[in-house]
Amino acid sequence: MAGVERYIEAHADEFLGELKDLCRIPSVAGNAAALAAAAAWIERVLRRDGARTELFEFPDGPPIVCAEAGDGPVTLLVYNHYDVQHPEPLDRWRTEPFEPSVAGGRLYCRGANDDKGNLMARIHAVRALAAAGGLPLKVKFLVEGEEESGAGERLARFVRGHAELLRADGCLWELSWKDAKGRPIVTCGLKGHLAVELTARGARTDMHSSNAAIVPNPAWRLVHALASLLDAGDRISIDGWTDEVRALTPAEEKAVRRIPFDEEGFRAQHGLRGFVRGLTGGDLVREYLYAPTCAICGLHAGYTGPGSKTVLPAEASAKLDFRFVPDMTSEAMLARLRRHLDARGFADVEVRSLGRFVPAATGTGDAIVEAAAAAARETSGREPIVYPVAPWSGPLGEVCGTLGIPSVAFGIGNPESNDHAPNENIVLDDYFEGIRCMAAFMRRYAAARRRPPGG
Amino acid sequence: MAGVERYIEAHADEFLGELKDLCRIPSVAGNAAALAAAAAWIERVLRRDGARTELFEFPDGPPIVCAEAGDGPVTLLVYNHYDVQHPEPLDRWRTEPFEPSVAGGRLYCRGANDDKGNLMARIHAVRALAAAGGLPLKVKFLVEGEEESGAGERLARFVRGHAELLRADGCLWELSWKDAKGRPIVTCGLKGHLAVELTARGARTDMHSSNAAIVPNPAWRLVHALASLLDAGDRISIDGWTDEVRALTPAEEKAVRRIPFDEEGFRAQHGLRGFVRGLTGGDLVREYLYAPTCAICGLHAGYTGPGSKTVLPAEASAKLDFRFVPDMTSEAMLARLRRHLDARGFADVEVRSLGRFVPAATGTGDAIVEAAAAAARETSGREPIVYPVAPWSGPLGEVCGTLGIPSVAFGIGNPESNDHAPNENIVLDDYFEGIRCMAAFMRRYAAARRRPPGG
Repeated sequence: MAGVERYIEAHADEFLGELKDLCRIPSVAGNAAALAAAAAWIERVLRRDGARTELFEFPDGPPIVCAEAGDGPVTLLVYNHYDVQHPEPLDRWRTEPFEPSVAGGRLYCRGANDDKGNLMARIHAVRALAAAGGLPLKVKFLVEGEEESGAGERLARFVRGHAELLRADGCLWELSWKDAKGRPIVTCGLKGHLAVELTARGARTDMHSSNAAIVPNPAWRLVHALASLLDAGDRISIDGWTDEVRALTPAEEKAVRRIPFDEEGFRAQHGLRGFVRGLTGGDLVREYLYAPTCAICGLHAGYTGPGSKTVLPAEASAKLDFRFVPDMTSEAMLARLRRHLDARGFADVEVRSLGRFVPAATGTGDAIVEAAAAAARETSGREPIVYPVAPWSGPLGEVCGTLGIPSVAFGIGNPESNDHAPNENIVLDDYFEGIRCMAAFMRRYAAARRRPPGG
Repeated sequence: MAGVERYIEAHADEFLGELKDLCRIPSVAGNAAALAAAAAWIERVLRRDGARTELFEFPDGPPIVCAEAGDGPVTLLVYNHYDVQHPEPLDRWRTEPFEPSVAGGRLYCRGANDDKGNLMARIHAVRALAAAGGLPLKVKFLVEGEEESGAGERLARFVRGHAELLRADGCLWELSWKDAKGRPIVTCGLKGHLAVELTARGARTDMHSSNAAIVPNPAWRLVHALASLLDAGDRISIDGWTDEVRALTPAEEKAVRRIPFDEEGFRAQHGLRGFVRGLTGGDLVREYLYAPTCAICGLHAGYTGPGSKTVLPAEASAKLDFRFVPDMTSEAMLARLRRHLDARGFADVEVRSLGRFVPAATGTGDAIVEAAAAAARETSGREPIVYPVAPWSGPLGEVCGTLGIPSVAFGIGNPESNDHAPNENIVLDDYFEGIRCMAAFMRRYAAARRRPPGG
């Protein structure tokens, strides 16, 4: 790996400059021009690196970039996305979200980690390997622009329609992080995700709040409807919600209890007095990795500026985010949510699906997981933590489930990366370590797959 | 009144132009420059009309304008305010909120009714009376700039400190409306008002929603805390809240049942399927005028833009608006709210008072009410509706309670005025009728007060 490492070191400024260039493009959902610009930028960089590229455009959504580099009997699919989360709340950022800024050994900007940093680390690893002796396998890039908006349907259709183009032995998934103690987290699967919006409506327009004694207030409807979904102990109370959730096998339970989780570090870092229901130890890790969730991601009604306004809102809405586990389906969940609301007298509260991802997981003993863990161990000098399933989500099932290939994820994030939050950042050392890790992983995976099973 | 009416007709364009000029000043809470400009504009107009004016300035709030016009043994205090509600949500306005616009016989802009239109109608009535034979009484104007922010404390202090300056026989209060059938509403009192903000806090910053299984979500805390305040039947369920609410006397109950309320017109106008708890008839009017209320005026947490964002909010807040009746005090209410939240396990939910007004009412048989009703009857040709207490609020107790004087309110609003909402407007005919009504009221009130009681 000495040649690769030397190349990375010699090109550090170029790599960082490219990452900053990509991060300057405000490719948030709804900004079609920026999304297209980010896709075009990525295709251009990959083409310049010698990859065979193709840009797939859609009349009603951002492009998908596909690229193929190297050759050989083993093929690795690399999945990343170029869209980023909206930067709001802007007043909590210490720097401009789309003007990358280096301070204290970190790069701050929206997308630094999720997911432009991880995408670029992989592109840079491929470039370094090609320059220092050649790519040990064929790498196929699949880079899309709707991950953050949770709109997995287009990607799912694309994968079904381009199975041959995307055919691979295994997939390196989006991203991962180090934990608070600097241990790389390698993940083998993701929870499913369903985003919905609940809306309650009242009068035709906002009214003066002095009408409150006689005019129904949709904010109260929404509050009562929401309160019926989760009990005061933070357990989902939607009728039938967890019917498919199976208990962990003794082996899974044992594995979960071996996964280190730095509770004190996590609490201190996020300023938490404690965890939900006072969870701790193995129970905490089990819930974190395996429990279905129902989160309020947004609440809005009436006047929310400074001071007060005596308004009775015409409408109130909540954005909810459900995470779920295999055997649960978003279709059944949506039907249950509707039935639950109807049964509790909230037939007037509208439910709208905003996007969904199916859950998926690869066995922790798969060769791709072992190659990833070994590469992470080698480049970080730390024993990686392997999550059989990660608590977050993405179109993993839509891609690897459809293609029928195993997958694994590791990445450049740190426990204070602030993904989806103000002041998103990466540690610059992690960025270059991530490039080395990616290169080591590709060599190991190519070697493992070339070796006959059991050989 | 012929001279007054001729003057009003001859000066209609001038009157409307002045009203538009005042409405162009965006005097919302927080815009200190605009608030000061509105106060200065009003003082200038009153001075030009020959009134003795005084502008009281404060280092930390908008000015108070006092003015005195005319003379004689009877003095009428006229209370209005020049601050207006924030215009949000802007996307619901069909015209610019601070660019007055006439269409279909109506003037549209923020403040058209509440309260710049009513203030100007009164200024114009005084001008017309003075020009057409002389003011029949002494008029004292008290015009302030913090009514909409519910900050009654400064005004209360000002009134206590300037009782002699403000001394009067009675007070004409802020504003009122016609009902959906065109009947003028004359009001004799107001409910009290207490605005509070509830805030729940979670992690130090917004986090990724995939942490929902283990990280407490303040939006859920807020929802559960709110749900404990009002039951599903829209009744306030805060412990001890209604202890002071007395049942209506048989006479009050009888009076309430005689008050007409156009339920069908109100429902149709506001697009309502029905009223709270299916209220109708006398029960509806009684609740409307006498019931304490707890309204959610605003809800905010996390991401509220288009699409979804997988964020676990760091904080969630609700703006609440309580209306209350005599014998209830905002101090006791705040203490009860705190105790209730503590007792239900919500000690971590913060409560902040945003402003308050005490309730106040004048007997419906008072001379000032009779003069107002007669003037309204005379100028509209319709039988006015007299509310013993109005469901809305304002610093009536802070002014008239402190000065120990009776008060009444009538005004230029229509049932679709959209006060505190997008597309606020007045009917232009109502504006000029309002000027005539004000002039008629002043003549009648001066005559009634000059006549010895029982004479």
